[in-house]
Formats: sequence, structure tokens, C-alpha cells
Amino acid sequence: MKPTLIQLLTTVALTFSGFMVPSLAKSNDVAQIKALEQSFQDAVRAKDPVAIMKLYAPGDQLFVFDVVPPRQYAGFDAYKKDWEDTIAMFDGPVTFELTDLVITTDGHGLAYSHSIQHLTGRMKGADAIDVTVRVTDVYKKIGGKWLIVQEHASVPVDLETGKPDLQSKP
Amino acid sequence: MKPTLIQLLTTVALTFSGFMVPSLAKSNDVAQIKALEQSFQDAVRAKDPVAIMKLYAPGDQLFVFDVVPPRQYAGFDAYKKDWEDTIAMFDGPVTFELTDLVITTDGHGLAYSHSIQHLTGRMKGADAIDVTVRVTDVYKKIGGKWLIVQEHASVPVDLETGKPDLQSKP
Repeated sequence: MKPTLIQLLTTVALTFSGFMVPSLAKSNDVAQIKALEQSFQDAVRAKDPVAIMKLYAPGDQLFVFDVVPPRQYAGFDAYKKDWEDTIAMFDGPVTFELTDLVITTDGHGLAYSHSIQHLTGRMKGADAIDVTVRVTDVYKKIGGKWLIVQEHASVPVDLETGKPDLQSKP
Repeated sequence: MKPTLIQLLTTVALTFSGFMVPSLAKSNDVAQIKALEQSFQDAVRAKDPVAIMKLYAPGDQLFVFDVVPPRQYAGFDAYKKDWEDTIAMFDGPVTFELTDLVITTDGHGLAYSHSIQHLTGRMKGADAIDVTVRVTDVYKKIGGKWLIVQEHASVPVDLETGKPDLQSKP
């Protein structure tokens, strides 16, 4: 049976308002956040704190628990200084690889992910460093662009022995 | 000048569609998530893993980076076992306090928070434990109820000395 015009129009309207658009929007969001994390990986490899900080939300919107002390970084400027200090500590090149990235979004301007980030390099006046970090990121679409609003980076610690596991495996 | 009926109706419509309802929904969401974290605090104090796990999303929706090894817990059952094992390690009462809770929601079924969680107690056959943990939670409204879908708990670690800071301060 041939559909009537009204049936066709209803189908088109439902498809675009209720189903297609959110799922397309979600896959676009995920692609944009993947690109953000690719830019992050490139910026760390380039030891470029300015490029790194372009991926974070400005002002008080940003909150971070970093892998190293202190407890927390509240706001963009505090975390910018943390990245500048971290990059300055490295002597020579670093290797950096972001893997196991899983992104979830609700299609409404908020998203989150978890990933594993492996960093090696030589610290000035200290030993080589080789650390596998677990990272949680929360992203918000601000002015049409996805930015990180909250980050939590860490290594697991055995609380009975007091020893961190710098090479944690799944 | 007295407003016309159409002006009044327009104001009412705008108020409810564009401003009032989302902000009311957001404050309801925040109140419900605060209640969830209150229940979490009560359940840890009661050393009740069943009550704790009622606050987490079922099945594969849950993903956790815990403070202790291993690297990650994928899925509800894996994290349930982690909580059961953790609770079983304590000998006698624990003290537990959740503070500095900051919740953000987009008003569309996704939310996130950061908090500080302070735990003390005595481990079986081991020393007393006293640890301040940093926690990131991501929440999703599933079947009308907010549940934790992703959690990241950690203590900061000095990567140069290899020492964790179990009593981190802001």
C-alpha cells in the first residue's frame, strides 16, 4: 500500500526530530571529543603547554585532581601553571600515548570519558620517568566547542604497603 | 501601563518553557544527587556493601578507577566484589566523612561531581588506616533515578619520590 503524503511527512518529521538528529548529534559530539583528545596527545608530545591549555574550560569552570600533589587545582590559571611546571621539569623529548579512550555523551552538551595515558621521559636532575596514568575527563560544549571542565588523573596506590603502581595493567 | 492578556500569557509561557522549568529541574537534580551521596556516606559508615552498590548503575554501564589496584573495574559485578573485599578487610568500626561536594548538571539526565572522602579504621592484621581520598563521580538518570555510572577515586603521588600523600590538603 502506497503511503499517503501525511504519513510520509509524519515519518520525516519523527525521523528528524526524535531519532536521527540526537543520534547524529551524539556521533558528531564523540568525533569532536576524540579530536580534542588527539590534539591533547599531540600537544603533550610537543611539550606545548599553550596548546594543551586550549583544550580546557576558562576561568572557574575548570576543576582538576592531578596525579601529583597538591590535592586539587581550582580554575584554569592554577592548572595552566601545573602544566607549565610539569613540562619545564622534562629534559629532552617525551613519549606520550593516549589509549583505551571511551567517550559517552547525552547529546545535550555534556560528556565524559575514561582513558589510559602512558608517559616516559627524563626529569631534569633526576631519573627517567615511566608512568601509566588513569584519566577521567568531563567535557562541556561552551560557545559551540567541547572543552574539558573537570579532569581526574591518578595511579593506583596499595594502601597497605603505601606503594603506588606506576605501571598498572587492566 | 497595564499589560495585555497576550503579554501576560507570553510572559507565563516564557517563564515556564525557557527559564523556570530547567532551573527547577536542575535544582531538583542536585538535591537528588546530594541525597545519593548522603546515602553513600551512611552506607560506608554502616559497612554495608549491598546499600553502597544500590547507588551504582547496573551491568556494563559502570566503570571505576579505584584508589587501590588493580587499574580499573569494568562493570557492576567487578566493583561490587571490590567493595565487599574492602569492607571485609576492616576490623571494627570505621569513620567516614564526605565533604567538599560540588555537583554540576546540565538538566538533561547527566551530572558530575567532585568531593573529598576521609576514611579511618583498623585493617585486619594490619595497622590503622587514615586516608583522604579525592573522588570524581559521573551520574546518569536511569529509569527516573540518579545512579553513579563512572567513579574515579585516588590520592596524589609524588612521582619523583614515589610517595603517596594520604593526607592531602587543598
